[in-house]
Amino acid sequence: MLSIEKYQEEFITYLEAYATFKEPKGLYEPIDYILGLGGKRLRPVLTLMTSDIFNGDYKKALNAALSIEVFHNFSLVHDDIMDDAPLRRGEKTVHEKWDINTGILSGDAMLIMAYQLFENYEAETFQSLAKLFSKTALEVCEGQQYDVDFETRSDVTIPEYLKMIEYKTAVLVGAAMKMGAIVAHALEDDQNNIYEFGRNLGIAFQLQDDYLDAFGDPKTFGKQVGGDIIENKKTYLYLKALEFSNEADKVELSQLFASDPEDVNTKIEIAKQFFMSSGSAEATKEAIEDYTLKAFTVLQALNISADKKQLLKTFGNNLMNRTV
Amino acid sequence: MLSIEKYQEEFITYLEAYATFKEPKGLYEPIDYILGLGGKRLRPVLTLMTSDIFNGDYKKALNAALSIEVFHNFSLVHDDIMDDAPLRRGEKTVHEKWDINTGILSGDAMLIMAYQLFENYEAETFQSLAKLFSKTALEVCEGQQYDVDFETRSDVTIPEYLKMIEYKTAVLVGAAMKMGAIVAHALEDDQNNIYEFGRNLGIAFQLQDDYLDAFGDPKTFGKQVGGDIIENKKTYLYLKALEFSNEADKVELSQLFASDPEDVNTKIEIAKQFFMSSGSAEATKEAIEDYTLKAFTVLQALNISADKKQLLKTFGNNLMNRTV
Repeated sequence: MLSIEKYQEEFITYLEAYATFKEPKGLYEPIDYILGLGGKRLRPVLTLMTSDIFNGDYKKALNAALSIEVFHNFSLVHDDIMDDAPLRRGEKTVHEKWDINTGILSGDAMLIMAYQLFENYEAETFQSLAKLFSKTALEVCEGQQYDVDFETRSDVTIPEYLKMIEYKTAVLVGAAMKMGAIVAHALEDDQNNIYEFGRNLGIAFQLQDDYLDAFGDPKTFGKQVGGDIIENKKTYLYLKALEFSNEADKVELSQLFASDPEDVNTKIEIAKQFFMSSGSAEATKEAIEDYTLKAFTVLQALNISADKKQLLKTFGNNLMNRTV
Repeated sequence: MLSIEKYQEEFITYLEAYATFKEPKGLYEPIDYILGLGGKRLRPVLTLMTSDIFNGDYKKALNAALSIEVFHNFSLVHDDIMDDAPLRRGEKTVHEKWDINTGILSGDAMLIMAYQLFENYEAETFQSLAKLFSKTALEVCEGQQYDVDFETRSDVTIPEYLKMIEYKTAVLVGAAMKMGAIVAHALEDDQNNIYEFGRNLGIAFQLQDDYLDAFGDPKTFGKQVGGDIIENKKTYLYLKALEFSNEADKVELSQLFASDPEDVNTKIEIAKQFFMSSGSAEATKEAIEDYTLKAFTVLQALNISADKKQLLKTFGNNLMNRTV
């Protein structure tokens, strides 16, 4: 087993060799650009680490890891068009630097290239990886569609919200880990359990993202604190606050999340008051804890050494103790 | 072997059963819509027919045929956004009926669904189909990018143009036929030769489309005659006319294809005069003939009966004798 930093390093070396400067430039330059923008490379690192955990060789998992990263960046390119986002990791988004058509077409090419990376595996492994990939990729599309639908709906339920973040974010974490297990030829039960570990940790991580958006430390939280509140996003914090509020508070909170005031700081403060007084902040912390525990419980069933289980638990704890 | 009409019928029955009315509706309804718009279903019919030609069972090729059709429609949805096209087969395009974001996301889902259709085959066949599919799909993206690039370039060469139409159109015809051969477990040489047959016939077909745009019969040509001329498209007819013209004519023709006059009929007439007097119309007819003959020559090497070779030749001749 290597350290997380070492997996990151190995992955980035592999990624850099993947940039090909192919023709036509109008199609491939934006792909090299977005893949080179950086990020924590969390998902591919999970693929490599999981492969080693199941006694595989992380080097053999590099193509699967790269596929996950190329897919993730495909989804960023297309989502950024849909969200009209000007910036990604502090740099121009693809459709801003080039144009929308380039974003669409280069994104399409990335989705295909993600599949091509499985061609380095023999037929049975190829099919397992591609099946998991397709299922996951389609769920990510469905999650994005639910997210779009929720913007104009006022009756989103907590189970619907959880399904949305599961599809949009968590399944890819589960799939990244399961791919490492597939490449390592792990037992099918282990493959499914490591998927559940990643999926539950992914949900916990996304709920924590919701929580930190309101209550995170501006110095350490990567994004603008209060961003979801400014944009009237119906996060777990908001939906739980609605659920726990009386009729008068429900009306007030709904109106706050339909407003677009000049003074965003006051809006953020009022929203945070609602989240705390309603008990929603506390309930969100509990949900994060629940999903983290679910992830850790699944670990027990894995056919791996206690050391390796501890390693996955430490990884999970580090991930969940970020930047609060 | 069935008749073309019978393959069409069988395919449409299968396609109609594929419409699933899944959730979220915002993602899947546009997919059912575009797949239901009709068209000749030429590519999937080729997959089914080719499978039978190599002693397969066309029923086993239905999923591969459907994959080709789903992919083709994915490319139409995304291309229509890029071309800002309001109509497709006389009905609203997806991004017009819904919006651009829907077109992007539903298109993405279709590309994934096209891969999923291969999951019905065992691992070796799955890998062969998916590899061919990825290579072809990426070439289609590259062809689309070249087409976009050519709009703003004045130095496009004939080989570049031929590569563009090969990638954008012809490789998918070749792939549709090769998939039928793969599913039927045809010899590798036969798989490659039937691909070449389809690819060459696809190029001939596209060149004929260029020719008919100027010289076709308005009553039988599916699109507006002169459409390419109105839109200043640098087709084979135009590029060959430039090549064959003296300096003065080159300037005049270039200026004509940079103009956007109210009176399109005069523009069309002048362009057609150029095409005829320069010898470009004749050269285009010869190129069509050449590629059709290349396709027919490849047939000789196939390990199939003379009857079946004749059947493919008749199919090719019918395709190329449409509507002149």
